[in-house]
Amino acid sequence: MSYSAPLKEIIFTMQALAGLEAIAALPGLEDANLDMVRAILEEAAKFNHEIIAPLNRVGDCQPAVLRQGEVTATPGFKSAFAQFTQAGWQGIVHPPAYGGQGLPKLLGAACNEILNAANLSFALCPLLTDGAIEALLTAGSEEQKKRFVPLLISGAWTGTMNLTEPQAGSDLALIRTRAQQQDDGTYKLFGTKIFITYGEHDLAANILHLVLARTTNAPDGVKGLSLFLVPKFLVNQDGSLGARNDVHCVSLEHKLGIHASPTAVLQYGDQGGAIGYLIGAENRGLESMFIMMNAARFAVGMQGIALAERAYQQALAYAKTRLQGRPLDGSTPHAAPIIKHPDVRRMLMTMRALTEGARALAYYAAALRDFAEHAPEAKTKLENQALYEYLVPIVKGWNTELASEVASLGVQVHGGMGFIEETGAAQYYRDARILSIYEGTTAIQANDLVGRKTARDGGAAAKILMARILATEEALAASNSLAAKVMHTHLRAGRHSLESVLDFMVERSKTQPTIAYAGAVLYLKLAGTVLAGWQMARALLIAQEHYALDETFYAQKIATAHFFATHILTQAPGLGAAIMSDSESIESWLAEAQFS
Amino acid sequence: MSYSAPLKEIIFTMQALAGLEAIAALPGLEDANLDMVRAILEEAAKFNHEIIAPLNRVGDCQPAVLRQGEVTATPGFKSAFAQFTQAGWQGIVHPPAYGGQGLPKLLGAACNEILNAANLSFALCPLLTDGAIEALLTAGSEEQKKRFVPLLISGAWTGTMNLTEPQAGSDLALIRTRAQQQDDGTYKLFGTKIFITYGEHDLAANILHLVLARTTNAPDGVKGLSLFLVPKFLVNQDGSLGARNDVHCVSLEHKLGIHASPTAVLQYGDQGGAIGYLIGAENRGLESMFIMMNAARFAVGMQGIALAERAYQQALAYAKTRLQGRPLDGSTPHAAPIIKHPDVRRMLMTMRALTEGARALAYYAAALRDFAEHAPEAKTKLENQALYEYLVPIVKGWNTELASEVASLGVQVHGGMGFIEETGAAQYYRDARILSIYEGTTAIQANDLVGRKTARDGGAAAKILMARILATEEALAASNSLAAKVMHTHLRAGRHSLESVLDFMVERSKTQPTIAYAGAVLYLKLAGTVLAGWQMARALLIAQEHYALDETFYAQKIATAHFFATHILTQAPGLGAAIMSDSESIESWLAEAQFS
Repeated sequence: MSYSAPLKEIIFTMQALAGLEAIAALPGLEDANLDMVRAILEEAAKFNHEIIAPLNRVGDCQPAVLRQGEVTATPGFKSAFAQFTQAGWQGIVHPPAYGGQGLPKLLGAACNEILNAANLSFALCPLLTDGAIEALLTAGSEEQKKRFVPLLISGAWTGTMNLTEPQAGSDLALIRTRAQQQDDGTYKLFGTKIFITYGEHDLAANILHLVLARTTNAPDGVKGLSLFLVPKFLVNQDGSLGARNDVHCVSLEHKLGIHASPTAVLQYGDQGGAIGYLIGAENRGLESMFIMMNAARFAVGMQGIALAERAYQQALAYAKTRLQGRPLDGSTPHAAPIIKHPDVRRMLMTMRALTEGARALAYYAAALRDFAEHAPEAKTKLENQALYEYLVPIVKGWNTELASEVASLGVQVHGGMGFIEETGAAQYYRDARILSIYEGTTAIQANDLVGRKTARDGGAAAKILMARILATEEALAASNSLAAKVMHTHLRAGRHSLESVLDFMVERSKTQPTIAYAGAVLYLKLAGTVLAGWQMARALLIAQEHYALDETFYAQKIATAHFFATHILTQAPGLGAAIMSDSESIESWLAEAQFS
Repeated sequence: MSYSAPLKEIIFTMQALAGLEAIAALPGLEDANLDMVRAILEEAAKFNHEIIAPLNRVGDCQPAVLRQGEVTATPGFKSAFAQFTQAGWQGIVHPPAYGGQGLPKLLGAACNEILNAANLSFALCPLLTDGAIEALLTAGSEEQKKRFVPLLISGAWTGTMNLTEPQAGSDLALIRTRAQQQDDGTYKLFGTKIFITYGEHDLAANILHLVLARTTNAPDGVKGLSLFLVPKFLVNQDGSLGARNDVHCVSLEHKLGIHASPTAVLQYGDQGGAIGYLIGAENRGLESMFIMMNAARFAVGMQGIALAERAYQQALAYAKTRLQGRPLDGSTPHAAPIIKHPDVRRMLMTMRALTEGARALAYYAAALRDFAEHAPEAKTKLENQALYEYLVPIVKGWNTELASEVASLGVQVHGGMGFIEETGAAQYYRDARILSIYEGTTAIQANDLVGRKTARDGGAAAKILMARILATEEALAASNSLAAKVMHTHLRAGRHSLESVLDFMVERSKTQPTIAYAGAVLYLKLAGTVLAGWQMARALLIAQEHYALDETFYAQKIATAHFFATHILTQAPGLGAAIMSDSESIESWLAEAQFS
């Protein structure tokens, strides 16, 4: 089945939880008023429904193909990409000075959700291009920006990230690709990069590869990495395309999912060296790449929501039409739609609660980024940036882990039909599995969360969020509804658990780092659970307040929040207990001897 | 990589936890002494390692193929199947009177674990044949048994289960296949059956289809179902094969996993009617099919352990050789094997703890079945049978849900390589996904657990197990080790939670059945968690006692049990809380209006 963007839910989340109105009041974002936002989202919904979503299953069955170094995308992708870029979708959050529309990241996040739900494999191409744009804008010279960014925003060219090598996955210190400076100031690159998403394709006239490599005599480790721009075709002074550069696709991976996204092995320099241009300072490549990676990590978190939403839509539609079994309440002697069965409802509610919670948390984070960029006061900027950076690994890690869980429940709702590829539920299950791996595995996110985002500031950013949760708890306590009471109980228990874990992480990362990092992933899951639960609590309060305006929508929102409290937040204390076992317990299973 | 049967672990579980010695003391099972059991298991390990396991990836890449009604199995399967049956593996638990070896179900379970770990798709053929043997032995006439069972045990023929139809999946009441009695007492069958595992293949000379169908004027619903035996080839009086029967494979499904297992659509009676023989009494087909299904459900639970074990072995091997990142303890400045990283250890321990707990629980259940069959006293038989039946849906449901989780962790340990099909981890992830669907989804198991296994006897069987857990808690309390103390704390909390849920289920299934069934799957997960945790607690105590005899093995066992306590059992109270929310909370999300 196809995909229909949940616009009402998206706009509710933007307005009620992420503060769209306050964002539209920020200098430079005045265009982002509700009418404009709604119009753009409606157009995104229509475009993706009509043009992009129908290609999702096509791409699963007809992956991109490599022949003699040239990659041909899935049938239909080239035309769809042309329409996508012509309509300006690549540029919505990028600066008007380079051809973008300068709209809020919050709106960009919503548009990305819709695009990724329509077709994850297709969406990866613009996602990587966004990353390349961000990296160039931050680290590139004025000349590089002017020359390349407009071409990426217009969609004439696309961008890639080249980090991974066969021996260097999560561990960038092991990168071996070499860059030799030439007399004209350019470099020649030699090496092999793997897992390069859209590393080769026929959707655009040129591809800009952003490549981490080592200059001659660079230090060992990550402090010796520099960032280079290596175009597939060299560019003449007049802007026309010149010679083919010495970077070639030597194979495409055969993957569990996202079949339509060409994952390339790129060979640099087999024919004399690939010409590249240094971006930023030598040996500072990792910093620039981190900009790109943070944007990409947040975007991958959005992919999690997107896939979860699409899996939910398909499961819901199937549950309403598949007739099996009689309802327990005896309401009919005939076979009823399976949605009448309590466990099918439990599965659907789990899917919905996780998806809505993850969306609310991610949109909230996107809004923080808008405040960080556009708020007039430096202090506000800094605080919002710190909160955003705290949330990025959680949005990436938690949203993507739950995407697999939601896609798996989607298969389960379909029963035996879910295991049959033609049904489509299995594709979401396969596609989802990459999300908690690429752009940094969940463990990499969790280590970032413990080290750079919690230990480094002594938990200061996290504690600002804890104070905000406490304020929501107080509002819940003031409400008389059962839903608010139940939410209050479980949100408070979850926050208590998370606060204890924060203290534990701050202390242990100094005194017993191995003990701290042994609980890193569970801490990330706990934080995601509690923070998304908090967003659901906020949604609950707003839904109660506005109930009379739209009873059906708000009643569902209240029930989903209520379910989140009883079925998801109840898991928080157990996570806390596992993280904070006594040191001796943790040391016992960490011991070398366990794996002999 | 290949698979090596964990014989030491298997024999420990059989001896220390499942009571192998007591089983070998039962009348009729005297052959099952430790030496014999060890010899058989060593042979199983060798045979499956050499002959069956190497075909696992072959089957994933080269599924069975249908051409003009004939199915050709994966290359290598036919020869492997011949060796499998010639060595007598099909008959180990079946009665010597029909050519079997009459060995304990406990040993059969262990052999099945090894076979399924070697090659799940291959193992499905003997698994279904086992079910057909059980059904014939229970419901067939003396003549039917004598005529057909030896042919199944020898592997000359194989068996299938035919329940599902396009409109009748979990809901067998909707079955439409018709059976018209002929003057000679045989029946002619007409209808379409789908999802028939090994419904057509070239491994054996004949296939016996066991088919649920309705005789003329049979009542509606499940009470009008009769069981028929429909051979692919009719059989002459002298036992030679006669004419091709009118049952034909019209297509094979294109599935997410278990590619080498041909999943057939079978058309009955398009050329005048498929000749079938009634098994047991008319309209009593479901009872006979349930015998087959219960055996098959337990066997699918074993498949869960098998896949989990294989995924663990591969992840462990990868983690020991893949070099990425420096250890936190600064023990080396160079890239270290990823097993040095705390979260990789957490993932591996989670995989191992779940797998060992699931194995222990399933073997314990298999032993109950041996006591139920062979114990001299009727009362002992009855009690053991009741406990076994209580555990079957848990072994099926919990073991298979965790198999997907373990296989997913296996992918995660591999990082990006896990998403590449050639690595093999992705195949386990795809294969595992069917286990919680076929032979009854987890919800079907959970409904069985609530209705037939808990409510019907007022929780009596479950409470016998609770008393046994309490005895283990007392033994833990008497131990001074940290591991025993930690286990005691979490096992007690888990048992408290499970006991409350038992009372809740017994009461609510009468007064508010919808509320009870809304928590059925979570109850199944809670029961699996606590009961497997109990087995790990027993293992811990025994390991402490025998520590000096094999320090390495027992130290690992203690650490795994310890980890199970802190990381798995800690989830139990959260499950209990979700199940036992107040009725109004549950009703709010169950309400019709939530899905409008």
